Amino acid sequence: MTEDRLAALEIRLARIEDELAITRLMASYGPLVDAGDASAVAALWAVDGQYDVEGWQMRSRADVDAMVRSEAHQHLINGGCSHFLGPAHIRIDGDEAIAVCESLLVRHRDGAFSVRRAGANQVRLRRSVADRTRWEIVHRTTRALTGSTEARDLLVGASEAARP
Amino acid sequence: MTEDRLAALEIRLARIEDELAITRLMASYGPLVDAGDASAVAALWAVDGQYDVEGWQMRSRADVDAMVRSEAHQHLINGGCSHFLGPAHIRIDGDEAIAVCESLLVRHRDGAFSVRRAGANQVRLRRSVADRTRWEIVHRTTRALTGSTEARDLLVGASEAARP
Amino acid sequence: MTEDRLAALEIRLARIEDELAITRLMASYGPLVDAGDASAVAALWAVDGQYDVEGWQMRSRADVDAMVRSEAHQHLINGGCSHFLGPAHIRIDGDEAIAVCESLLVRHRDGAFSVRRAGANQVRLRRSVADRTRWEIVHRTTRALTGSTEARDLLVGASEAARP
Repeated sequence: MTEDRLAALEIRLARIEDELAITRLMASYGPLVDAGDASAVAALWAVDGQYDVEGWQMRSRADVDAMVRSEAHQHLINGGCSHFLGPAHIRIDGDEAIAVCESLLVRHRDGAFSVRRAGANQVRLRRSVADRTRWEIVHRTTRALTGSTEARDLLVGASEAARP
Repeated sequence: MTEDRLAALEIRLARIEDELAITRLMASYGPLVDAGDASAVAALWAVDGQYDVEGWQMRSRADVDAMVRSEAHQHLINGGCSHFLGPAHIRIDGDEAIAVCESLLVRHRDGAFSVRRAGANQVRLRRSVADRTRWEIVHRTTRALTGSTEARDLLVGASEAARP
Repeated sequence: MTEDRLAALEIRLARIEDELAITRLMASYGPLVDAGDASAVAALWAVDGQYDVEGWQMRSRADVDAMVRSEAHQHLINGGCSHFLGPAHIRIDGDEAIAVCESLLVRHRDGAFSVRRAGANQVRLRRSVADRTRWEIVHRTTRALTGSTEARDLLVGASEAARP
């Protein structure tokens, strides 16, 4: 009986730790990419993780690293910008998880700030094999919220109804 | 002694699971309403739950479903928009809870995005009778942050000082 | 064996409770400051806590209280505004913690809303001596995201690599 209760507590606690680990990962992306910390951003992805954002298809951790170091991204952050992600809606299923959030890209220019894009983000993660307490991004898809069904479909990925 | 420690752990863990369940619910509203998933949005509310947003008083889960399917909301999401909610400040008291957050409505139009409204949200929830791990919205009130005391009063609902 | 497992669970649970306590604190700042609840905002800081925001150096809880009551802040909230903070990236190390987030200042004016500033926030906290379940802000630094290295350096404060 004590054994059962201990085992149940351990399972529930591990589930919560998973959720908070993914919460931290998701909350770290915006600050790290706006800081220009290429290796810290890249480390959020699996070695073979993908990041599919309109007009830019990254197919590995190295590609994500290169994106942060790219002239385009450096120009953004040198001028001042915020990749502002909202709270992630997370659904975990064993060693896989989906996190969905919306995002705003805010830019600074000529002393003023403006919203340049609102986006839908669906992030698929898996538990790290090397460190079972860590999670890694396997596939992130981002689309601008311009009314397309493609963007809107991303937003339902973590809802109960979407459970396979 | 072991019994007491187990019981204490179970209570603390259940409290955390409640908080994360409400966090997930709050994080899911924006993505689901922008996806236009009427039944998933409506399922966040109790059958008799209310949603009071300026100029629109919904008095049931069915009313919330109808709002998402309405021409006004469909027009918004077909053009592209983000109901961007910030992290919720949550206070739980047994089977009741309050979650407070601010929100932005960002719209896409003619290729550009802009903030159309900033809002104060106070969401009152209760534990589901049918499923004690689920929470449902009993009453959500949203007001634009135009300086009114009504909007500002909503924002203190989850603070310690507001504890009844 | 049971003793070891109980002790391990208690430690892990306390770690999670710390993280959620800080999450709540961070999520409460925006709503409380936009409500103008000076004493509730001030209570987030340690008695000798500091808040260093461009052009304004507060050196105590009383200074934070005075900021909220100031003519400048009252003017902002009477006209309508949102200090919209994103989800905090939190790193805890014993009795100390760092929370990093980005923020937007949205203002209402002449019936319209606009983003007036995007900011980088680094918040250093410590566990309260009087109440070991509470956390207090020791030092918050906020800088506008205009491309300065100072602002960008704040954003990496909670990442693994920044661990001392």
